Amino acid sequence: MTTPFRYRRAIRFEEVDRAGIVFFARFFALCHEAMESFFGGLEGGYPHFIGGRGLGVPAVRAEAEYNAPLRYGDTVDIDVDVVQLGTSSTTLRYRMTRGNQAIAVIRHKVVCCQLAGPTPVPWPDDVRRLLTVHLSPG
Amino acid sequence: MTTPFRYRRAIRFEEVDRAGIVFFARFFALCHEAMESFFGGLEGGYPHFIGGRGLGVPAVRAEAEYNAPLRYGDTVDIDVDVVQLGTSSTTLRYRMTRGNQAIAVIRHKVVCCQLAGPTPVPWPDDVRRLLTVHLSPG
Amino acid sequence: MTTPFRYRRAIRFEEVDRAGIVFFARFFALCHEAMESFFGGLEGGYPHFIGGRGLGVPAVRAEAEYNAPLRYGDTVDIDVDVVQLGTSSTTLRYRMTRGNQAIAVIRHKVVCCQLAGPTPVPWPDDVRRLLTVHLSPG
Amino acid sequence: MTTPFRYRRAIRFEEVDRAGIVFFARFFALCHEAMESFFGGLEGGYPHFIGGRGLGVPAVRAEAEYNAPLRYGDTVDIDVDVVQLGTSSTTLRYRMTRGNQAIAVIRHKVVCCQLAGPTPVPWPDDVRRLLTVHLSPG
Repeated sequence: MTTPFRYRRAIRFEEVDRAGIVFFARFFALCHEAMESFFGGLEGGYPHFIGGRGLGVPAVRAEAEYNAPLRYGDTVDIDVDVVQLGTSSTTLRYRMTRGNQAIAVIRHKVVCCQLAGPTPVPWPDDVRRLLTVHLSPG
Repeated sequence: MTTPFRYRRAIRFEEVDRAGIVFFARFFALCHEAMESFFGGLEGGYPHFIGGRGLGVPAVRAEAEYNAPLRYGDTVDIDVDVVQLGTSSTTLRYRMTRGNQAIAVIRHKVVCCQLAGPTPVPWPDDVRRLLTVHLSPG
Repeated sequence: MTTPFRYRRAIRFEEVDRAGIVFFARFFALCHEAMESFFGGLEGGYPHFIGGRGLGVPAVRAEAEYNAPLRYGDTVDIDVDVVQLGTSSTTLRYRMTRGNQAIAVIRHKVVCCQLAGPTPVPWPDDVRRLLTVHLSPG
Repeated sequence: MTTPFRYRRAIRFEEVDRAGIVFFARFFALCHEAMESFFGGLEGGYPHFIGGRGLGVPAVRAEAEYNAPLRYGDTVDIDVDVVQLGTSSTTLRYRMTRGNQAIAVIRHKVVCCQLAGPTPVPWPDDVRRLLTVHLSPG
């Protein structure tokens, strides 16, 4: 059994639009935050991954299904797991909930690259280990 | 033959991230801008659609395939057409190019709602006409 | 002696621009976050202040002095105090530091308003009490 | 007599907050857009200034006075002129109007820097010429 990584975040005033709900594009930014936190499991975290090692994970595909809106004052939980793992790619899944209510499911396929380029490279061992811990059997 | 609606936009300084490219989530915001411009074909435009008529189009699904990065100084063309049209839903497609190069393709399924609620409602006639003009036969 | 209210926050990937530093406009958004957290001392917090009581605090003046850049991976502390308090206005000061280093000082003058309007109204008693606790003698 | 440089921009859906008005921090981002457009008078524009010449203009001070809110559907004019010009610094002034109504006045002091560093450097001749054209006698 895999334990997903959980990231919790309160919705801020600036994130809510004219209609009183979080703008659909911003859900992807919330998931990126969860991913940065997920990579906090690496030595030096995501800042070192980018700045120190010169690596990055550009997206090749992203998709979201929206089930319910997020409003100002809500706290959202984002459970991150790994639903595909290749030599230099992975697909992260983010299940967003507020209490017991499903909010959205996002899938985000990225490729490990040297940012100078960018040129795809295989996952370094420590990153692969972290991804494997959260690899979902299904 | 359908003519897509074209929206052209220069990438701004603030939109480019640490890695020198447009952040993946922001592509969806660029498409939303194109959609606001697309709805400029309605009387009063999108501001009147939202503020005057109390309608909105929350997303139920969004997906992007990324082919090439956008950088600061690039100008991107976004061709909008309609690939699905139901009673109260539609799927917009945004093909993003820079010159002859494919940048990304985004699909964005929305539902027409009264914002007080939100409650799904059928497309008003003028909106349906606009969507039909750009409905892609394929 | 007044104790300022402290808000701590890690800089996220998306917040760093092409030049590798936090964009100058975003400092104000960081301070607004600190203010939302500061108003967390009210019953129901800032979301209730806005959504439940129909109040808001539009800015009439904002100014920043920038001493040192913020980079990805930095954690910034924002100390909030109150340097002016009127019938319906207040000026909040945000001193931003990273460890011992001064990063920026921001002053933000706002007016308490009923959002329907907006119409200025005197500070409610509970808000005035909270502001007074953090009123700086200087 | 100096002619200010005018930048015109429609307010977008995403830019309007929960209270239906443009968030105070975003006014600075709108002015930065106007500045990018102002520097369009240089060969290669601001993208070449940053990417090609490795220069940048970090802010050392920014201040805004807000007179009236901006709402979704508004078009704002931003008149840019130069109210101070030093060896390596300048203060830009942005007067924002909607029709005849004053919206805000923003002052933005920046220093010309080599981004690798950043290290202050004197204004290059072409930039100084452009700034001088818009230097306000007052």
